[in-house]
Amino acid sequence: MTKFADETLTEIRRDLHRHPEEGWKEFRTTALVAEELDERGFDLALGSDAVTVEERLGVPAADEIAAARERAKREGAPEEYLDRIGDVTGLVAEKRYGDGPTIGVRVDMDALARSEASDDDHRPAREGFASTHPNEMHACGHDGHTAVGIGIARAFDAEGFDGTLKLFFQPAEEGGRGGKPMSETTHVDDVDALLALHLGLDEETGTVVGGYDRPLSNAKLDVTFEGEPAHAGGAPNEGRNALQAMTTAIQNLYAIPRHADGKTRINVGQVHADNAQNVICEEAQMRVEVRGEDADLNDYMMQKAERVVEHAAGMHDVAYETSLYGMTTTFENDGFVVETVMDAAETVEGVTQICGRSPFGGSEDASFLIRRVQENGGVASYIGIGASNPAGHHTAYFDIDEAALDIAVGVVEEAVRRLAVRL
Amino acid sequence: MTKFADETLTEIRRDLHRHPEEGWKEFRTTALVAEELDERGFDLALGSDAVTVEERLGVPAADEIAAARERAKREGAPEEYLDRIGDVTGLVAEKRYGDGPTIGVRVDMDALARSEASDDDHRPAREGFASTHPNEMHACGHDGHTAVGIGIARAFDAEGFDGTLKLFFQPAEEGGRGGKPMSETTHVDDVDALLALHLGLDEETGTVVGGYDRPLSNAKLDVTFEGEPAHAGGAPNEGRNALQAMTTAIQNLYAIPRHADGKTRINVGQVHADNAQNVICEEAQMRVEVRGEDADLNDYMMQKAERVVEHAAGMHDVAYETSLYGMTTTFENDGFVVETVMDAAETVEGVTQICGRSPFGGSEDASFLIRRVQENGGVASYIGIGASNPAGHHTAYFDIDEAALDIAVGVVEEAVRRLAVRL
Amino acid sequence: MTKFADETLTEIRRDLHRHPEEGWKEFRTTALVAEELDERGFDLALGSDAVTVEERLGVPAADEIAAARERAKREGAPEEYLDRIGDVTGLVAEKRYGDGPTIGVRVDMDALARSEASDDDHRPAREGFASTHPNEMHACGHDGHTAVGIGIARAFDAEGFDGTLKLFFQPAEEGGRGGKPMSETTHVDDVDALLALHLGLDEETGTVVGGYDRPLSNAKLDVTFEGEPAHAGGAPNEGRNALQAMTTAIQNLYAIPRHADGKTRINVGQVHADNAQNVICEEAQMRVEVRGEDADLNDYMMQKAERVVEHAAGMHDVAYETSLYGMTTTFENDGFVVETVMDAAETVEGVTQICGRSPFGGSEDASFLIRRVQENGGVASYIGIGASNPAGHHTAYFDIDEAALDIAVGVVEEAVRRLAVRL
Amino acid sequence: MTKFADETLTEIRRDLHRHPEEGWKEFRTTALVAEELDERGFDLALGSDAVTVEERLGVPAADEIAAARERAKREGAPEEYLDRIGDVTGLVAEKRYGDGPTIGVRVDMDALARSEASDDDHRPAREGFASTHPNEMHACGHDGHTAVGIGIARAFDAEGFDGTLKLFFQPAEEGGRGGKPMSETTHVDDVDALLALHLGLDEETGTVVGGYDRPLSNAKLDVTFEGEPAHAGGAPNEGRNALQAMTTAIQNLYAIPRHADGKTRINVGQVHADNAQNVICEEAQMRVEVRGEDADLNDYMMQKAERVVEHAAGMHDVAYETSLYGMTTTFENDGFVVETVMDAAETVEGVTQICGRSPFGGSEDASFLIRRVQENGGVASYIGIGASNPAGHHTAYFDIDEAALDIAVGVVEEAVRRLAVRL
Repeated sequence: MTKFADETLTEIRRDLHRHPEEGWKEFRTTALVAEELDERGFDLALGSDAVTVEERLGVPAADEIAAARERAKREGAPEEYLDRIGDVTGLVAEKRYGDGPTIGVRVDMDALARSEASDDDHRPAREGFASTHPNEMHACGHDGHTAVGIGIARAFDAEGFDGTLKLFFQPAEEGGRGGKPMSETTHVDDVDALLALHLGLDEETGTVVGGYDRPLSNAKLDVTFEGEPAHAGGAPNEGRNALQAMTTAIQNLYAIPRHADGKTRINVGQVHADNAQNVICEEAQMRVEVRGEDADLNDYMMQKAERVVEHAAGMHDVAYETSLYGMTTTFENDGFVVETVMDAAETVEGVTQICGRSPFGGSEDASFLIRRVQENGGVASYIGIGASNPAGHHTAYFDIDEAALDIAVGVVEEAVRRLAVRL
Repeated sequence: MTKFADETLTEIRRDLHRHPEEGWKEFRTTALVAEELDERGFDLALGSDAVTVEERLGVPAADEIAAARERAKREGAPEEYLDRIGDVTGLVAEKRYGDGPTIGVRVDMDALARSEASDDDHRPAREGFASTHPNEMHACGHDGHTAVGIGIARAFDAEGFDGTLKLFFQPAEEGGRGGKPMSETTHVDDVDALLALHLGLDEETGTVVGGYDRPLSNAKLDVTFEGEPAHAGGAPNEGRNALQAMTTAIQNLYAIPRHADGKTRINVGQVHADNAQNVICEEAQMRVEVRGEDADLNDYMMQKAERVVEHAAGMHDVAYETSLYGMTTTFENDGFVVETVMDAAETVEGVTQICGRSPFGGSEDASFLIRRVQENGGVASYIGIGASNPAGHHTAYFDIDEAALDIAVGVVEEAVRRLAVRL
Repeated sequence: MTKFADETLTEIRRDLHRHPEEGWKEFRTTALVAEELDERGFDLALGSDAVTVEERLGVPAADEIAAARERAKREGAPEEYLDRIGDVTGLVAEKRYGDGPTIGVRVDMDALARSEASDDDHRPAREGFASTHPNEMHACGHDGHTAVGIGIARAFDAEGFDGTLKLFFQPAEEGGRGGKPMSETTHVDDVDALLALHLGLDEETGTVVGGYDRPLSNAKLDVTFEGEPAHAGGAPNEGRNALQAMTTAIQNLYAIPRHADGKTRINVGQVHADNAQNVICEEAQMRVEVRGEDADLNDYMMQKAERVVEHAAGMHDVAYETSLYGMTTTFENDGFVVETVMDAAETVEGVTQICGRSPFGGSEDASFLIRRVQENGGVASYIGIGASNPAGHHTAYFDIDEAALDIAVGVVEEAVRRLAVRL
Repeated sequence: MTKFADETLTEIRRDLHRHPEEGWKEFRTTALVAEELDERGFDLALGSDAVTVEERLGVPAADEIAAARERAKREGAPEEYLDRIGDVTGLVAEKRYGDGPTIGVRVDMDALARSEASDDDHRPAREGFASTHPNEMHACGHDGHTAVGIGIARAFDAEGFDGTLKLFFQPAEEGGRGGKPMSETTHVDDVDALLALHLGLDEETGTVVGGYDRPLSNAKLDVTFEGEPAHAGGAPNEGRNALQAMTTAIQNLYAIPRHADGKTRINVGQVHADNAQNVICEEAQMRVEVRGEDADLNDYMMQKAERVVEHAAGMHDVAYETSLYGMTTTFENDGFVVETVMDAAETVEGVTQICGRSPFGGSEDASFLIRRVQENGGVASYIGIGASNPAGHHTAYFDIDEAALDIAVGVVEEAVRRLAVRL
């Protein structure tokens, strides 16, 4: 019997909440989902069959991944599936119920690198299902998304529908790292309609948004400057100062000109340089993020940022390397799908308010899957399911109202059935 | 019987080399020295009796100190002395042999935060006495200095001399953190002459330098900028960016004007800021070092640096805190002592070359003890003892020729005897 | 007989075009307008009676103003009015025709500091009415605006209307320097409706825009840093470097965070520092401009800019002074006036296209007059009159189709008549 | 009869003081010197025969040079010599008195771009020989140097000496612009000994310094950044901002690392950028100076500065041009010449104190002539002649005690005679 066999979606979500796993480390999550869907007769593509390995972004060091895999084993990940997963997380599960169209549903599974509140004001702490891992927390509801994904699989157990269901359990959404490599597999090719969903987003339980779209494009760039150390007292001229290069870069990154065509953003979140005080800095690292209201504006920022980095390095005669940590793009929902979701929501118990298309403030790498489906002639929407989150996403007190889980399953199930008919 | 009872100075030095302890963590070293000198009849001032606690600089966090103390216990520090030491390392030992003057000798005990080479090219590795602690190494010869301190105590066992011997086993010389608090105790008040010494310094074994002096003054400043986080995409204007403040500070620190009166230096060695890429930086830290050819030039740099930091913070509306991590000052030897040391060296076996006063390229916090003795009317010199170091100080392959240990003891013993007569 | 007595609006416009005068130097223009309107029985408020002298922004040096006044005399400004004008340009002219409401019309008179094209591709050069002053040119159509102002006065000569006409001939619109001081006089207090107008704006002759509004707010700040010179070779430490302060300011000005609420802009256009290469810079000057999509965003930028300047000066221990060179604010037209203008335009010969409200891309200091009227309970709109300008505003080849002059007069005359009835 | 025929050196100096001419504009000075030396039978090399034209540095614009030449004519420059001079100032005059060695004497002729004090505290003003040109002043004693040059020519009229006298009247010493092009002529090739001299330097009249040497090397770099303008409100992203490039450069120029080997200096004296506030800066200019304790250190600074400029431009995608405005190098006197000068000084009336070799604080482009002579196997020294200057060099109140003129001539005459014998 599978671990989740007798568990409700709330129980599954709580189990996942207690065992959060950051991006590219979702071994326990992937293995448990695989076990559950295998049991239900889905065909599984796991790990390197689910994502294009070489397109992965922001991948942790090999020893970190290995440690995460070991921990998953210790924490009850079924070994059979762990073996099949290998070193790469993520899962695509497919089941054919009838001759109709292929409907995809995408959920994400990763947690964030932050600690969870442990006081009684925080329900997960009070009720004993808070994260058991310091500095890891499901603070964006992906535990719920994963549970909903299982719920959707279960929903068609009894009657099926006239088509094929394809479930994308995406790794590493945070930072925009897993969407692109999953979008570049052949799994997306035959999808006629794709639904993605997000719980919470500051909407009350009972609210359904037919489609969020037009997120900001963004890109995250890791930069390392490599200079030459020297004794800061004895021979300052012999150094090539990586920190001066980085500092010059940062000042000029923030000063990239605003753009006439729309919103742009720039930020440097992390910097590290670790020399003793008396050593001219040899190596300095920073993590940069650019955004644009659309992909062109994002490209404008990225090109400007790369030029700044190149010449900041050149100015101080230091080498540099850049790597893309993550990225997202923008997208627009198809009105037909938005309306179908809204129609579906009418029939679902617990739904009290139904909204149309709405702009998505943040960024999302489901964007890559959605655009790929649309490029292939398919249609898509990104559904919002209110969940009365008591605190903002990404904060220590984030939580979701688990009543939203069944609502989410219900809306998606209904939407799938209608899409299968209407397409 | 004490641990070191039957050990040669070479054996003692190798024992210490295997168990390096960083500044303010020299629990095992202090306890073993205390045990040895107690046995020989010295009066001991330990820990908070040896340094002015509130004047300590660059003190590690309490949990780090506690862990270091625990490790010392595990690694054989005699518990009796560990108890007497408490949480503060360092030791002053005094023994009266006759009515004559009080002669002080200062040695330092701390190791560096760096890993030691482990290959066979490195004698300590080859012969099995390399550091057993990753990222800690006696790479500046303080293990030898401590052994020499014990050797000097032993040297007067047989015949004594007409005066009082006072041995200063100083903690935390690296970074300039222990000299000042030890200089501000009453132990220094009655010292008529002070000898400090350093092994190595790129001189061959057999060379003795009567006195190094005129080191650069320096000061190390830790700075933390505290701003306000905000979502870099959604509300960049709501942040108060600690990283922009730090960046502005660093650019302007390096641009502090050169000074007409002599050499000045500035460096920023470490920077840290740890936000996610999409968060306006809330906290940023840096470690700064300034130097000057003399104390006035050092003050000039320090005042300029503080002004830069203050206004960089103000410009970005962030708070900041500064704390002194360490400092050294400059000094000049007394010619009389330098000559006495040179005379003494003539009589010591193994000495092949005797040099006079020479400028000390780096920085040294023995400076505070030396100046304090001189202010009280005493005299002092800082002796160099060649030790054929095969690699530069502070590098992974640093080592000393242990033949230098007995030479050092011999030179100091002879100098003490002559000073007792001449003063 | 007045100079303009027998001249058409085209002739007047060409006379003004040949004699362009920059802001606060419009002596000839003001005197000729005064002469003309005095003749027609208007009550005149001239110079310091037309603007609040102490609120003037960006005023040139006294000797520049005196020279401009002298030139005006040489170039035919009637001396009687020149005497009444004194040292301050600008004019408010009022004439009561009936008991009805007071309708204000605002036009501006100043030229730009740029040279005019002199080749035959440029009609004013070809036809002999190009600027006779190097580096001064009517490149924004204010010559036409002034002529239209006279045309409006003439339009009511025959029949008048049931109300009072108040004409505001504003000085120093370029840079946003004259609108605020004119808005702070009592002349605005009794205005029931205000019409302002602009020719050109890249619309064809025949097009009328009922109301441009929502311009960007902006503010222009002049900053002088005052340090202490020193010999850069001999005593660099003795200087207090005004240029380092300015440089630090500029880098951080461009890096003021983007704002979530809308468009912001920052620019430094001019910098000057004039020391020899071997002198630490004593004085440095810069001219800064900030903009915001609304007044709050403009204030945000201004406050950030002032903070940057303050601390850049403090960081380098130099004094600084700031003065406001100019400013504009934003406004919204009253729909009632916009519609009245559109209705009026229907009746005017030559009008071929009538547009409604439209956003104004640039900045305008008529904004102060419009807001003041609205605050007093009046209504206003800022009318656009297409003039087939062959080249962009502010460029060397700018020109207007003079057929637009009569259209402008016609639209305003009709709008005034209708407003007098409807209000 | 020549203009100076009956004039004392004091009268000549005062005439020159009233008519100061900046570097490369010394037409009147050159012509009057030429007239005087021609009369005395010297062979003259004038203008482009006296300097290598293409090696000139910091040459003013052609129209400025033409205007200076016109002014010289108006102010009494003899036209015959003005014609021979052409557009290039400077003069080498040679006369063979005997078969012995060739002894060169170098004086400089140019004034500074600063205004002279006009109040009675300033003797030149009080006695009516202050500068008649605003913003030009002989504030460094080169008027006296020129007079001394003529005095030396006169000194050998009666008896000659056994050798050849070659007088170098160098243009454009200020900024280091004329020394290099004069050193690169063949005139220097046969010089066996070279004497250069400076009056004042804060020594009292009567003091003679046998040789100043070891000046700082320096180089002055003019930099222009050329970007692309754009409307700062409407299209900030379309600009390429020359001012941001310059600002980035300046911040990083001041932050060039100090050098272990000795003194270095960096300064930016002038900056200019002239756009309207609402235009992204198209062009920005700066004047930079670097110095080093020796030529290598100067090169270090220059190379670092050029790297900074290159990448600051690259970072902001703007073009740049650099040109050398001026340069000096370092040199050491030959002890033999220093001693000969000291011996000579013993015999000269009015000499009260004779000093040996002394370091020269500033920079001097006589350095190029001296080094060239030494490279060819000759010897040289740079003599100091005290002149009780009441205020510092380059200040508005600078003056010299004219009693020093005859002392200077006497010392040089005697030194030349002795060198002719001893060489």
